[in-house]
Amino acid sequence: MSGNQSYADWIAVDWGTTHLRAWAMVGAEAKAEVSSADGMGKLPRDGFEPALLRLVEPWLGAGRMRVVACGMVGARQGWVEAPYVAVPARPTDLSPIVAPSADPRLHVSVVPGLSQAKPADVMRGEETQIAGFLAQNPKFDGVLVLPGTHSKWVRISAEEVVSFQTAMTGELFQLLAEESVLRHSVSASGQNDDAFVQAVSDTISQPEKVSQWLFGLRAQNVLDGQDGTTARAKLSGYLIGSELAAARPYWLGQAVAIAGTPTLTRLYADALKTQGVTPDVHDAAPLTRAGLARVYATLTENA
Amino acid sequence: MSGNQSYADWIAVDWGTTHLRAWAMVGAEAKAEVSSADGMGKLPRDGFEPALLRLVEPWLGAGRMRVVACGMVGARQGWVEAPYVAVPARPTDLSPIVAPSADPRLHVSVVPGLSQAKPADVMRGEETQIAGFLAQNPKFDGVLVLPGTHSKWVRISAEEVVSFQTAMTGELFQLLAEESVLRHSVSASGQNDDAFVQAVSDTISQPEKVSQWLFGLRAQNVLDGQDGTTARAKLSGYLIGSELAAARPYWLGQAVAIAGTPTLTRLYADALKTQGVTPDVHDAAPLTRAGLARVYATLTENA
Repeated sequence: MSGNQSYADWIAVDWGTTHLRAWAMVGAEAKAEVSSADGMGKLPRDGFEPALLRLVEPWLGAGRMRVVACGMVGARQGWVEAPYVAVPARPTDLSPIVAPSADPRLHVSVVPGLSQAKPADVMRGEETQIAGFLAQNPKFDGVLVLPGTHSKWVRISAEEVVSFQTAMTGELFQLLAEESVLRHSVSASGQNDDAFVQAVSDTISQPEKVSQWLFGLRAQNVLDGQDGTTARAKLSGYLIGSELAAARPYWLGQAVAIAGTPTLTRLYADALKTQGVTPDVHDAAPLTRAGLARVYATLTENA
Repeated sequence: MSGNQSYADWIAVDWGTTHLRAWAMVGAEAKAEVSSADGMGKLPRDGFEPALLRLVEPWLGAGRMRVVACGMVGARQGWVEAPYVAVPARPTDLSPIVAPSADPRLHVSVVPGLSQAKPADVMRGEETQIAGFLAQNPKFDGVLVLPGTHSKWVRISAEEVVSFQTAMTGELFQLLAEESVLRHSVSASGQNDDAFVQAVSDTISQPEKVSQWLFGLRAQNVLDGQDGTTARAKLSGYLIGSELAAARPYWLGQAVAIAGTPTLTRLYADALKTQGVTPDVHDAAPLTRAGLARVYATLTENA
């Protein structure tokens, strides 16, 4: 494929702390996808270009290929710092920063993240998911939830991110379930819907009790033989319940949409339903690519 | 020292998940102390006796040496299971279980832990610290706090543990400060008293906000250059504040004593003072040994 003719029109790149994913794009359509574990977290500044070439060189031709990237690749420790843009901001309208490249076949643009001054908060990568969501749902007015390692609650109006809030729920769950004393009592998979929903409700009613309930998962296992699936569901319910308690102004009386993996969107939808909120559910998988396509379209229109 | 005459009258042993510590005792006084990393967590059942002999063999004589041990050595995965005793219970009056030993020079007794049916809770090792505390403060009526990896709040009346509550505060702090994304923003040591006290007060007023504030520590570092010492103090304040919020019935209008390391007792005393509670502060270091001495005295009186 490395002839004069390139395989793709442009390349979309999702580059996080622990992963690198690239798509060979023709317009807004992906022809191929490649990925590696060359995340930003383990690359020196001069390691980014070689890591990208290892994946996408077969897609290049003789000319110059536009690459549009988002995520931690734009952090201070990334390929090039793409300084945060303060909210309110239009995620479909962010000006990318050009990353320095030695290979004349590459022209790499990095999408900036968003920041909020008060309360202090930041995102990198999610702004592009939001742009993808807005490309598909341009009239959306309400709150978009992006559950994950660091869940984001995002207030959107007139295609602008008005404010947002982060909860470390996914990371806390992984640390408690896999690294803490609870690992002996929490199973690695499985779900108990009733236990989950009850734990969410209990937490939203009494968020101050979670500090006590966590060790209770260990004690209930030791004393009462509580099974690991139930413990997993309760742990998940305590943490998502805590997130909902902190994010109450983001869902109370709001139109809420969730975009995430099927497993997470189901949990968050069930959790919100305990509070009388029925969210719209979206698959997050295509959003980053759709957001990058939107940025690419703007770049080439303006070129 | 391995003559016919033994070096000690008896041996006191504190045997946790990650450590093994033994004292050569004459009455209630320690003549020598030894320790190793042979915690219960990495020993098979037949590994306990050799691990103990590696430390204490020089103290043995021709006769039979009494050993009194507490902690996770009495768990189901320990040397011998010493089943939990349900509260209310007198920690100075627990009947130890004899562990099987192949060496005729050893007679090993393991102190049982305490359990509570509702809310489900357990302790192993702390019951012996409480026995030591009560040996020194026999008239104590109130709540004893043992801060640490798994902090215990213990209601004591008439030398009985009436009820207790556990918070995983120390373990959560370590996981968040060292393993999570916050590790980039939280220093490994240092303290900022004002930031700590403010974070405690904020958390007790709005415990539901902690889920939001945690990631804020990262964002304040990235956006505002908040120093790692302040972030460490705030993280500590959020977690100890959450513990206090969950333990409110244990300190509100109660006589409170704290026994721990100097660093932890100072933090917990400062945190309680924000709520108008001035606790008595005790050093936890001698308590386990004092508790084991109390058990030894009871065993030999009854022998």
